[in-house]
Amino acid sequence: MESLKLRRVAIDTYKENVVFLHRDCELYRSEGFQALNKIEIHAEGADELVIAVLNVVDDERITTPAELGLSEQVFAQLGKAEGTAVYVNHATSPESLASVRAKIAGSHLEYDEILAITRDIAANRYSKIEITAFLVACSVTGLEREEIVSLTRAMVATGERLDWGESLVVDKHCIGGIPGNRTSLLITPIVAAHGLLMPKTSSRAITSPAGSADTMEVFARVELGIDRLREIVKHERACLAWGGTARLAPVDDILISVERPLGMDSPGQMIASILSKKVAAGASHLLIDIPVGPTAKVRKRSEAMKLRKLFEYAGDLLGLHLEVVISDGKQPIGRGIGPVLEARDVMLVLENDPLAPMDLREKSLQLAGRILEFDADVRGGQGYFVARDILESGRALDKFKHIIKAQGASPKCVVSGRLTEDILAPASGRIAAIDNLQMARIARLAGAPMDKGAGIDLYKKLGEEVRASEPIYRIYSEFNADFEFARQAAEIDNGYRIEKDET
Amino acid sequence: MESLKLRRVAIDTYKENVVFLHRDCELYRSEGFQALNKIEIHAEGADELVIAVLNVVDDERITTPAELGLSEQVFAQLGKAEGTAVYVNHATSPESLASVRAKIAGSHLEYDEILAITRDIAANRYSKIEITAFLVACSVTGLEREEIVSLTRAMVATGERLDWGESLVVDKHCIGGIPGNRTSLLITPIVAAHGLLMPKTSSRAITSPAGSADTMEVFARVELGIDRLREIVKHERACLAWGGTARLAPVDDILISVERPLGMDSPGQMIASILSKKVAAGASHLLIDIPVGPTAKVRKRSEAMKLRKLFEYAGDLLGLHLEVVISDGKQPIGRGIGPVLEARDVMLVLENDPLAPMDLREKSLQLAGRILEFDADVRGGQGYFVARDILESGRALDKFKHIIKAQGASPKCVVSGRLTEDILAPASGRIAAIDNLQMARIARLAGAPMDKGAGIDLYKKLGEEVRASEPIYRIYSEFNADFEFARQAAEIDNGYRIEKDET
Repeated sequence: MESLKLRRVAIDTYKENVVFLHRDCELYRSEGFQALNKIEIHAEGADELVIAVLNVVDDERITTPAELGLSEQVFAQLGKAEGTAVYVNHATSPESLASVRAKIAGSHLEYDEILAITRDIAANRYSKIEITAFLVACSVTGLEREEIVSLTRAMVATGERLDWGESLVVDKHCIGGIPGNRTSLLITPIVAAHGLLMPKTSSRAITSPAGSADTMEVFARVELGIDRLREIVKHERACLAWGGTARLAPVDDILISVERPLGMDSPGQMIASILSKKVAAGASHLLIDIPVGPTAKVRKRSEAMKLRKLFEYAGDLLGLHLEVVISDGKQPIGRGIGPVLEARDVMLVLENDPLAPMDLREKSLQLAGRILEFDADVRGGQGYFVARDILESGRALDKFKHIIKAQGASPKCVVSGRLTEDILAPASGRIAAIDNLQMARIARLAGAPMDKGAGIDLYKKLGEEVRASEPIYRIYSEFNADFEFARQAAEIDNGYRIEKDET
Repeated sequence: MESLKLRRVAIDTYKENVVFLHRDCELYRSEGFQALNKIEIHAEGADELVIAVLNVVDDERITTPAELGLSEQVFAQLGKAEGTAVYVNHATSPESLASVRAKIAGSHLEYDEILAITRDIAANRYSKIEITAFLVACSVTGLEREEIVSLTRAMVATGERLDWGESLVVDKHCIGGIPGNRTSLLITPIVAAHGLLMPKTSSRAITSPAGSADTMEVFARVELGIDRLREIVKHERACLAWGGTARLAPVDDILISVERPLGMDSPGQMIASILSKKVAAGASHLLIDIPVGPTAKVRKRSEAMKLRKLFEYAGDLLGLHLEVVISDGKQPIGRGIGPVLEARDVMLVLENDPLAPMDLREKSLQLAGRILEFDADVRGGQGYFVARDILESGRALDKFKHIIKAQGASPKCVVSGRLTEDILAPASGRIAAIDNLQMARIARLAGAPMDKGAGIDLYKKLGEEVRASEPIYRIYSEFNADFEFARQAAEIDNGYRIEKDET
C-alpha cells in the first residue's frame, strides 16, 4: 500500500480530529474517500492508530497530493515528525457505536458499554456527530440512575486521578446559575485555616459572567501545573486553581464542548459531570449547593429534592461522602457581577468590612460550617460558629493571602471598567424580583468574564425600597461596542421588577 | 467595527460551513472568539448574513491576521470576490433551536416549527452538532405521523419543485436493501413506451454496491442539468438520471449526510426523505416497493404493513396518489451485483434473452403493471399483461435505447473486473438461504460501485441444488487490495446456507 508524507497543518480544530488530503492525491481517488469520511492513520514506527475526519483540499500550500495534512490535535496525538511515512485506510466505526444505537433505540446501557464509549471518546475516535448522538440519546431517554453512576465511573476511569494521601479531602460544588455567587473564595480559606485539606479546583465561566477561576485570577495565578498544585496544597492545605491543568475526567470536557452550543442541560449528565471531576480530583467529602429560585437553574424545590436524591444515590455508590444543601437562589449573591467586582465583595467579607455584602458572608459561613462538620472533631451544628470565628478573627484573610502568595500574585492590577452607566428605577416602590438570567446576560454583554473589570454593581437587592430615578445598578465596560450592547439590553429589560407602593 | 479581507481557502468541508481566523487576528482576541464558536459573516454589499463555525489558524499561508479565510462552501454561499471587506460577529443560535430542545424534551412539533428548522438547515445555519441533535431527538422519541407529513412538506418547501405540466406523472421507489434489484431500468422504458410520463431520478449507492444511477451510468450519462432533463423527458416521456442535479429537497441530503455515518434509519425520517424527493420531483402517482425478508431492511410482514399505513397516510395528506407493494426480499434479485453485472442482467431482460434472470423480469413486469394501472385506460388487473406485451414486442428495448441516446451514451465502455475468483459450495445440498447483507458487503469490498466492473455474479439462487465444490458465485475486482478483502470476507462467511440432502 502506498504511503503519504506527514505534514503539520496549523489549523486548530479544537477537540475534533481533522486531516487534509489533496483532491489530486492518488489514494483519494483509488480508495474512494469522500469528504467527512473517517479514516485511520498509521504512522511508520507508531503503535497506535489515530482516527480522523477527512477534509479535501485543492491548494498545495496547505497540503500536496503526496502529503497527508494533520490538524494540530491529530499531529499532537500521532506524535511523529513531519515527513514521516503514514498510511491511511477507511476507518471502521468504533464498535461502541453499537451501544449508542442501542441507546437511541431505548436500551439501558451497562457499565462496560459506557466504559467502551468513553474510552473511544477519550481516544478521539468519535466524531462530533457521534458524540452528539450519544448525548442526545441519553438526554431524550433520560439516564437511569445506575447509568449515571456508570457514566461517572467511566469518565473517572478514562482520565488521571489525584491522590492526596489523606482520608479526609473536602470539596464543594454549586450547580450554578446565580450571578456573584463566589462562596468558594471564602469557604476555602476558612476551611483550610481550620486545617482541613481543600484542594479546590474551579472552572472558568462557560455561560456565566464569571467562574470562580476567573474571579480568583484577579488576585493570583490560577493556571498551575499539577506538581506546583501539590506543593501549594501541601503547604497551605488548600488552593484556588483552575481545574483544566490536570487531565481529570477529560471525556467530560469533550461532552461539554458539544452540550454547550446546544444549550443542553440534562440532570443525569450534569451529575455525572460534577461527580466525575470531584472523584478524579481526589475528594472524599463533598458539599453540593443547589440554589432554587424562579430564575435559577432549578426553579422548584421539588426539582431540587429530586436532584438531591440522585446526588446522594450516586455519591453512596461511588464511595463519596456527599451532602446537599438547597439554598436561596431568588437573586444574585453579593453586589458585584463580573470578576473584579466580585473580587471586591470577597475582599470586603474577608476584611470584615461593615460594607461587605451580608448575603455573601452568611451563605459562605453556612456552607463552610457544613464542610467543617465533616471533621469528626466539630460537633453537629457548631460548624457555622467555628467558621464565623475563623472569619472574624482574620485567620481566613490571612490564609487567603498565603494562598495568593503561594500561587503567585496576579501580575497585573485590574480595575473596574472605565465606561460606566447607572441604570435608574423607572418608578418608586419595592424591589419585588431580580432576574438572574437577565443580570448575567447584561454583565456578559458588558464584557465579563473576558474583560475582568466589566460587569454590574448592584445597588438594590430584593425587598429594598427605591425612589423613581434612583440608580438600581451600574454597568461597567472596557470597550464601546460591549458598553452599547449592555446598555441596550438593560434598556429593553433592566431585570428588576419594582412593585409600586400602595399608598 | 473593524473589517477583515475575504480570502478563499481551498478546503472542501462538505456540507458544513467553516471559516478560518488567524490566532493573531486582533478581532479574534478582542471579541473573545473561540475555536468551534459560530460566527456571523457580513460582506460589504451583501444582504445575507452567513453563519459558520470557526477554526483557528497559525499559518499565514492559509490565512493572515488581516483576513478571514472561507472554506469552499462558505465562499460559494457568500458569493463575493476575494479581498471584499467582511465583518464578523458572534452568531446567536438560530431561534428554531428552541424547537429542537423542545423535541429533546419530548414535545410534539407543529409544521411551522419544523419549517423553521428546515429553513435554517437549508441556509447552513445549523452546525453538524445541531443537525445531529435534531435527528437523534426525532429518532428516539419517534416522529408522530403528523410530524412525518410536516417534515416532508417542510423539506419540499425549502427546495426547488419541478412541474411537468401534466396531471399524471408516475414514479416508483424501492426502500432498498436488496442487491441487484434494478427494476427501475426496466419499468421506466416499459411505462414510457406505453405513453405515461415517468421522469425517473435515482440516487447513487450510499451503503449498497450500486444505485440505479450507478448502473444506468454503464449505459449513458446520468448527470444532466435540469433544462436538459426537461428536454429529454419532453421527447422520450422518461429519463433515467441521477437526482442530485436539481435542488430537490436539499435538506434531505444534509440530513442524510449525518444519518449515514451514524447508521441511523428511523421509519419517520425514511418516509419523509422518500416522499419529499418525489413530491419535489413533481410526481402525482407513486408506487412504493417494500421488500421483506430475513436479511432485508424490513424483516417482518407486520413491519412492512405498518410502513405501508404510514406511507398511505402521508401520501393522502400530501395529495399524492400512492400505492405500496410488499415484495419478496429473501434474496438478491437477478444474478449480477455491481453496476456492470446488473447492467448485463437488465439488457438480457430487455432483449428477451432466454438466459435473462426470470426473477428480475417478473418483478419488473409486476411493478410496471401496477404503474400502468394508474392510467385510467388500463383495466384493473391488466397492467401486467400490457407490460409483458411491451417487453416481448421489443418496444421496451427500443425505448431504452432512445433514452440512452437522448441522455448521451456512456463515453467509455466498461467491462467486468479483470480479477475473478469462484466461490465454491463447501458441501452438496440445496440453497436454503442467501444473506443480502453479506452479499452486498462482499460486492462493496470487491470495489462496487466505485469500480463499475466490480461485484458478484450469482450462479445459484434459493432452492437450487448444488454439488460440493461447485461454484456458487464469482467475485469480480479491478484492484488487488479490494480483491483480497472481498475474498477474505467470502472465506469467513460466503453468505450462503446450504442444507444437506437427507438421503
